[in-house]
Amino acid sequence: MCEANVYLVEGEEPKLIMEAVDTVEPEDGGLRLISIFGDQKFIKAQIHSLSLVDHNIFLKT
Amino acid sequence: MCEANVYLVEGEEPKLIMEAVDTVEPEDGGLRLISIFGDQKFIKAQIHSLSLVDHNIFLKT
Repeated sequence: MCEANVYLVEGEEPKLIMEAVDTVEPEDGGLRLISIFGDQKFIKAQIHSLSLVDHNIFLKT
Repeated sequence: MCEANVYLVEGEEPKLIMEAVDTVEPEDGGLRLISIFGDQKFIKAQIHSLSLVDHNIFLKT
């Protein structure tokens, strides 16, 4: 499976927001994250960068 | 491997920009795409959404 972990990059340490994310969609000036288990989370942030082979998505506010 | 195909969404049909992309990084108001083979491409666009289990990254201008 090609899910990824979503991190918010703010300050020194990236902060883990959600694991096993499948879908990232824009919504209301932020992002809706949906995991492979169907869990959803909304975060007021934008996508900064992707490193898919490492299963990482980095967000910024 | 968890690479993805990058599509630009403009008009009716998403247009395939690059296959087997590993890394997407912001650069000069656009994005640098780097494939698992090391190929690189710059595109003046932003990330719109992700559907990782389907191996899709959607960009918009």
